[in-house]
Amino acid sequence: MRCEKDSIGELYLPMNVYYGIQTERARQNFRISGETIEQYPELIWCIAAIKKSAALSNQHIGVLAPDIADAIVKSADEVMAGKMSGHFPLDPYQGGGGTSINMNLNEVIANRANEFLGGSIGDELVHPNTDVNMGQSTNDVIPSAVNMTCFLYIQLLLKNLLIIKKSVEKKVQEFSEDIALARTCLQDAIPITRGQQFSGYLSFIERQIGEFEKLKSVCLSIPLGATAVGTSLGTYPGYIEAIYQFLPTVSGIPVEKKDNFFDGLQNADGYLKISSTLKGLATGLSKMAKDFRLLSSGPRAGFREIELPAVQAGSSIMPGKINPVIPEMMIQVCYQVYGNDQTVTMAVDNGELDINVWTPIIMKNLFGSFQLLTNAIPIFSEKCLEGVKLIRENAIEYAESSLSNATIVAALSGYKRATQIAEQAFQENVTIREVVIKNKLMQESDANQFLDPKLLTDHNKSSSLLSNYLHRNQSISNG
Amino acid sequence: MRCEKDSIGELYLPMNVYYGIQTERARQNFRISGETIEQYPELIWCIAAIKKSAALSNQHIGVLAPDIADAIVKSADEVMAGKMSGHFPLDPYQGGGGTSINMNLNEVIANRANEFLGGSIGDELVHPNTDVNMGQSTNDVIPSAVNMTCFLYIQLLLKNLLIIKKSVEKKVQEFSEDIALARTCLQDAIPITRGQQFSGYLSFIERQIGEFEKLKSVCLSIPLGATAVGTSLGTYPGYIEAIYQFLPTVSGIPVEKKDNFFDGLQNADGYLKISSTLKGLATGLSKMAKDFRLLSSGPRAGFREIELPAVQAGSSIMPGKINPVIPEMMIQVCYQVYGNDQTVTMAVDNGELDINVWTPIIMKNLFGSFQLLTNAIPIFSEKCLEGVKLIRENAIEYAESSLSNATIVAALSGYKRATQIAEQAFQENVTIREVVIKNKLMQESDANQFLDPKLLTDHNKSSSLLSNYLHRNQSISNG
Amino acid sequence: MRCEKDSIGELYLPMNVYYGIQTERARQNFRISGETIEQYPELIWCIAAIKKSAALSNQHIGVLAPDIADAIVKSADEVMAGKMSGHFPLDPYQGGGGTSINMNLNEVIANRANEFLGGSIGDELVHPNTDVNMGQSTNDVIPSAVNMTCFLYIQLLLKNLLIIKKSVEKKVQEFSEDIALARTCLQDAIPITRGQQFSGYLSFIERQIGEFEKLKSVCLSIPLGATAVGTSLGTYPGYIEAIYQFLPTVSGIPVEKKDNFFDGLQNADGYLKISSTLKGLATGLSKMAKDFRLLSSGPRAGFREIELPAVQAGSSIMPGKINPVIPEMMIQVCYQVYGNDQTVTMAVDNGELDINVWTPIIMKNLFGSFQLLTNAIPIFSEKCLEGVKLIRENAIEYAESSLSNATIVAALSGYKRATQIAEQAFQENVTIREVVIKNKLMQESDANQFLDPKLLTDHNKSSSLLSNYLHRNQSISNG
Amino acid sequence: MRCEKDSIGELYLPMNVYYGIQTERARQNFRISGETIEQYPELIWCIAAIKKSAALSNQHIGVLAPDIADAIVKSADEVMAGKMSGHFPLDPYQGGGGTSINMNLNEVIANRANEFLGGSIGDELVHPNTDVNMGQSTNDVIPSAVNMTCFLYIQLLLKNLLIIKKSVEKKVQEFSEDIALARTCLQDAIPITRGQQFSGYLSFIERQIGEFEKLKSVCLSIPLGATAVGTSLGTYPGYIEAIYQFLPTVSGIPVEKKDNFFDGLQNADGYLKISSTLKGLATGLSKMAKDFRLLSSGPRAGFREIELPAVQAGSSIMPGKINPVIPEMMIQVCYQVYGNDQTVTMAVDNGELDINVWTPIIMKNLFGSFQLLTNAIPIFSEKCLEGVKLIRENAIEYAESSLSNATIVAALSGYKRATQIAEQAFQENVTIREVVIKNKLMQESDANQFLDPKLLTDHNKSSSLLSNYLHRNQSISNG
Repeated sequence: MRCEKDSIGELYLPMNVYYGIQTERARQNFRISGETIEQYPELIWCIAAIKKSAALSNQHIGVLAPDIADAIVKSADEVMAGKMSGHFPLDPYQGGGGTSINMNLNEVIANRANEFLGGSIGDELVHPNTDVNMGQSTNDVIPSAVNMTCFLYIQLLLKNLLIIKKSVEKKVQEFSEDIALARTCLQDAIPITRGQQFSGYLSFIERQIGEFEKLKSVCLSIPLGATAVGTSLGTYPGYIEAIYQFLPTVSGIPVEKKDNFFDGLQNADGYLKISSTLKGLATGLSKMAKDFRLLSSGPRAGFREIELPAVQAGSSIMPGKINPVIPEMMIQVCYQVYGNDQTVTMAVDNGELDINVWTPIIMKNLFGSFQLLTNAIPIFSEKCLEGVKLIRENAIEYAESSLSNATIVAALSGYKRATQIAEQAFQENVTIREVVIKNKLMQESDANQFLDPKLLTDHNKSSSLLSNYLHRNQSISNG
Repeated sequence: MRCEKDSIGELYLPMNVYYGIQTERARQNFRISGETIEQYPELIWCIAAIKKSAALSNQHIGVLAPDIADAIVKSADEVMAGKMSGHFPLDPYQGGGGTSINMNLNEVIANRANEFLGGSIGDELVHPNTDVNMGQSTNDVIPSAVNMTCFLYIQLLLKNLLIIKKSVEKKVQEFSEDIALARTCLQDAIPITRGQQFSGYLSFIERQIGEFEKLKSVCLSIPLGATAVGTSLGTYPGYIEAIYQFLPTVSGIPVEKKDNFFDGLQNADGYLKISSTLKGLATGLSKMAKDFRLLSSGPRAGFREIELPAVQAGSSIMPGKINPVIPEMMIQVCYQVYGNDQTVTMAVDNGELDINVWTPIIMKNLFGSFQLLTNAIPIFSEKCLEGVKLIRENAIEYAESSLSNATIVAALSGYKRATQIAEQAFQENVTIREVVIKNKLMQESDANQFLDPKLLTDHNKSSSLLSNYLHRNQSISNG
Repeated sequence: MRCEKDSIGELYLPMNVYYGIQTERARQNFRISGETIEQYPELIWCIAAIKKSAALSNQHIGVLAPDIADAIVKSADEVMAGKMSGHFPLDPYQGGGGTSINMNLNEVIANRANEFLGGSIGDELVHPNTDVNMGQSTNDVIPSAVNMTCFLYIQLLLKNLLIIKKSVEKKVQEFSEDIALARTCLQDAIPITRGQQFSGYLSFIERQIGEFEKLKSVCLSIPLGATAVGTSLGTYPGYIEAIYQFLPTVSGIPVEKKDNFFDGLQNADGYLKISSTLKGLATGLSKMAKDFRLLSSGPRAGFREIELPAVQAGSSIMPGKINPVIPEMMIQVCYQVYGNDQTVTMAVDNGELDINVWTPIIMKNLFGSFQLLTNAIPIFSEKCLEGVKLIRENAIEYAESSLSNATIVAALSGYKRATQIAEQAFQENVTIREVVIKNKLMQESDANQFLDPKLLTDHNKSSSLLSNYLHRNQSISNG
Repeated sequence: MRCEKDSIGELYLPMNVYYGIQTERARQNFRISGETIEQYPELIWCIAAIKKSAALSNQHIGVLAPDIADAIVKSADEVMAGKMSGHFPLDPYQGGGGTSINMNLNEVIANRANEFLGGSIGDELVHPNTDVNMGQSTNDVIPSAVNMTCFLYIQLLLKNLLIIKKSVEKKVQEFSEDIALARTCLQDAIPITRGQQFSGYLSFIERQIGEFEKLKSVCLSIPLGATAVGTSLGTYPGYIEAIYQFLPTVSGIPVEKKDNFFDGLQNADGYLKISSTLKGLATGLSKMAKDFRLLSSGPRAGFREIELPAVQAGSSIMPGKINPVIPEMMIQVCYQVYGNDQTVTMAVDNGELDINVWTPIIMKNLFGSFQLLTNAIPIFSEKCLEGVKLIRENAIEYAESSLSNATIVAALSGYKRATQIAEQAFQENVTIREVVIKNKLMQESDANQFLDPKLLTDHNKSSSLLSNYLHRNQSISNG
């Protein structure tokens, strides 16, 4: 064990841990969830990239000795390469706006740098605050790193959104000619093709991809250089310019300086926007999953219009039962995303004065939502969506039987008459087509054409047929 | 116009309004929602009851002159009788923890009391603060009145819960013999009776009635007498004892003094408990409404197991369509209740130091949820629930066809064998009963008995049949 | 009274109401909140604009007789002019996705059109469904109108955001030279100017203005022409092209056709985006209001750094007390906006199959949030923000006394030494400057310069001073 | 590797894992969060207790062979003793209402039982469904086990609530004579003792303890015996009576049978009640933590009334800064609890028909909230609350200076006069006491007595003094 000391007192640490007394105090203070920040390797990577860039910047402007800068850079590189895994023991639930996380990185990097300079862990050849944290504060480093991490998570999420997009596209193609019955208020409405229905999903996914593409710019605008409260106090001339040169190169993330640092530290609405976008995505995924559950309800006593791939036995007691477990997983992920948004909302709302100090809980919930959606989407896509099969005969029967097909009659003969026909069809338990023929409202051939479900799904055909019929009838009545 | 003056300056008021300068300032300050507290006549009634009781108490202990006390009492009686309607113009969105509401009552009562004493509106024969508010503070009056109002709202709600309870009870009776198919994960499970299903609703409603009965005690414990911060500063000896004698008599509400006044002002978790109980009720109403939507989906292309009363035409374009609009109304009311709970949660969480100053927004959302549920429940009950009709033939067909009926086979012959039977039934598109007979797993008469859906819903019968079968088989194998 | 009839039966209506049987049924079915859609005149205006445009379009393509079209147009014009006020009696809580609202407009317009054509209310010279609703469905009209209404509300909100923006700008100017102390974790940090702090608010407001500007495009993309389920069934050739010509002209709102109608009806994430943007705005307004409360805490026992305008007496019991009621109103409005978002989230999440049927509750909550924020912002701006006065002497004293001013020492002499100085200053109850001088760490003149709070707020000055000091010391040590 | 087979196909499993094919499928299907149910050892313990009790019951009623029952019991005992740790690899995010969890237990217990009977893992001497799951369904086992787990978590939480209760009690004692100033709307109000203020916290904690004690009964009412849908299908005669004999003994948890099994499976409002109670607790903890932050704001430029124990350095850049990190941790835990409640609400609301299938996400969020609060409370208590020190001189100064002390003057001489005095004191920057003396409103000795902050906190003293003064003055004016 080695002994370290700060203004609060002494503390013993295992010889071989790279973190120091500040990390250790925080580790002991925050034994809350059993989780650690190691579950967010991207975050650790981003902070290390900032530390490296800061060292390069401070060296560049002549305020950090080259050997110290070199040692910090090498050390940060090791962190970024994952070699320091196991030395970030902090619980994400923590006070102080992330100071402990920042200090964890500062201490690990300083101690490894001490070794590079021939010293040992615990030496002060490189000081965690004075050198590694030079020109920085938790208050600008942590929000910057969280934003950069979100940027990385967006990229991961987008990859998986492209996966599901392709799956939906295939289904839109595959189902383009398949007649089904649309429902409104869960009641029988008028025919669509299953491809049309799925094109709604596709359009949704495409829009979400656009939303996340746009969201990147929110993440790329960071307050690095603001230091503690926005005045950049503690930075040397040229540092800010330098770090916005180095950081994009070091990280590959094209970050840009926030216009107003005070705003950058005070307000956390950017996080809320990220959370809202995640929530927006969740609403459509959840809906899609619910639609699949509903359409696959059965196998004999439900909607029975689609069949989902069987991925596991459904019941411990009912043999042969298969459940829509993948959609159900997807839905629950979405419920978690909504709950996480709630936590983020409260944390964002409760910022006060010069910083929002709730970054740790915000970060935890944002990262959690990203990870859940990123993991769930390809599973939902591959284990469910891609394997959706149609039970065509049921869908067609539904489409033909719907009383709402009287809509086309209404377009021709008015709503009132069409209502009577719909009622008669209901009473006599026949189709609208059959009533139309029976009542001699149209010739049988016309009725068959007008009330062909396929035609009703095709706007070009349905509208020109309407038009022809109208003109023909007008000619007749005029003639 | 008359002119009034306070430390901020002068203000002109119409001659005939009973409220005074403090109300008028607040009216001008808070033009936010266009709503006024007149939408909560119960609240105004409760505050007036407090004012009356305080006057009686202060007179009783000899610190308020009898003529003034009398005038206040008569004035408060008029407010309670609704005669001052139109003189409470305040927007419920307001700062100051309800000071403006309290002053609105103080001013109206004082001015009417002035008239009783031969003076005019605007005189100070009776002073709103010194006399009407004697021994009181907004900080104890408003929470006390809000709690009392919630008590009244609970009573109203309970009345309507009894209405829906009776409706469900009737349905449980009516449907007691009607076979249906239960579903889990929206997949066909095993038979129940519709009466059993509805008994779940009934049991839920009964539990909620119990919850609201218990909730009354939360509302009855009030901090009246705490005055501004819990120290009762400003009250005379005997006042507190007296007011807890008078107020229950005056109001008919058996309020009790909170044990700890500091807690009573600081913490608003009682409101959250009210909101949570409302939310709890909403979850089951919403579920019931969703079940009705699902079971009535169709009329030809859905579950088609029940029919809801048609209360209006369903579509502007699709003739003859009928929608489950009453359940949909009910569901949306529940969504509002959830949102209101969210607002209440944030307001309760953000109390600070010696009072929770967010009573106005808490009150608005609690009252709103009470009113919505209280109004929606009898409509849901009378216009929907009571008129639910079964489409028996569909439900019976479902119950017989379910592959999960293999559960009874599993109980007899093991899960593995039962799974094979279920698969065979699925492949051959026949019932479990038919496979059991075909495969000679049982004698036909046994199969008909065991796989009678009716029997599967009756625990006594199903378990004793299982038992007999087991023993018979054991005898056979032993013999 | 007049008698009307539909498939459910007969109903008596007052002679002089312009709405008909469908509206009346809905009015009777949904007595829930006591509110009516008349509180959203913009919505009624937008639906009427759609009806007018549809009539013009249908006339243009030759499927609606010119006299009928004319009558509808004149009637819709009257609705848009507010002349039909009082004839929209529907509760916003209603099932059926807004069918009743759509029919309310159809019936009022048809009946007034009947009069224009020489008939009476209740005649069918113009039929509400066949003629007024021609080529339309609730499912495309209502979401389109809700989006258009949100567009109008955005414009109103933006006007008020410009008001508050100007107020903040003035304050940024006014306070640009005023020293204050920033706080992080509510603990004394380092100096800023009050102008810098307020520039954070300004930057926030500007960003929100940008967000709402961008949000307009979300509202402008509408599914009009989709009719019931996205297939445009019931429209005649040319109608869709025509209506997107007429509607922008009629309404002045540059709406555009949604690319995918199925998506347009199925998915309601656009509403969530609107709600999220409102929530984003609320977070910063709430924070600003909370900052004002905190900074004005006192007048003797708090932060005492700013004074808010006194707008009303603060207490019914404590004379002379003034409360920050305007910020408290603002905060509560924000809490409501968060709760409303919760309701919207649930409604958006629970869309199913071919439409999201929860538009009424979504609409109610979106419109509510818009109205609350639109009304509260100028009040917050005019009655509070603009009147903020600084209590300069306190702020300056705070800025000079902060132990965190040791940050500049850390930048010069390392974090460790600076920590010791901060501790000494704390123990001896003196300033950092005083310790620096006492300990002869710097010459007195240097210390006065370096530890001038004013300088610490100015990045250019602080960094070049740091730089000079460093180089001078390096010269000395090198020399 | 060993090969197992189910109706979906074959799967290879490592030889030494005790779980089987159903668990493995679920493990592969649900790679979502990286977490496993092993983080809830109490849940696994409870399910094993159910399995053991079921085996004993089935043996007792003569339907399960004694040797098989014995083997299951021994196996379940090992699970309960934690010996099977590592064999529960399932992600808590999963579809199917917990079927996979139930099967995981069934398979592990069956396989270990196979070994006890001389077989190997993968044999079917004991079958996971037929034998271990005999008379059970996921739908009754999982909700029962989740409720029992919540019961255990309540016990743990109560232990920690007793810890914090004791800490607060000590502080109430310690601070009983310490004068401070109460604040309302963050503005100076009237004096209290710090002990009074803390007694509000104490009363809150005591009430919460009561709430959780009452909540136990919610958890103890379980639907075990309902099997799949409430009809108890698949159980043998006497099983239900037996299991409610065995389970309380085996588990030590006094569970009771739910009155209505259909309700027990359909409705999940019990979970919401648990969540609401956790949320209620969170509101007060959060408030307490926020109060501590506010009162300890400073050390020089804030409220400066209390000092919190320093547990770690506060800033990476500002030397000597100490932050209230423990309260900040506590607050964030509460924000998470609120978010979790949101997820629970949505999951509870979305139950449908005969079961609520969202138990996995409900469970995850309930358990998470329990664990967070249980861990955070003792840390908050020990590392913060217990170490709170008063900065008495500031508090006393505040209490004496408050203009709201004019309240006592108002009680004597009316609100109007008191207002003038408060204004004068504000203008002249003196205390109320000083104005009263200066203006000769009272004799100096009276003023010193009446305006002694200590007296103002003591209701007995303040009210009898008021009374005496009033009577004396009345005598004078009468005399």
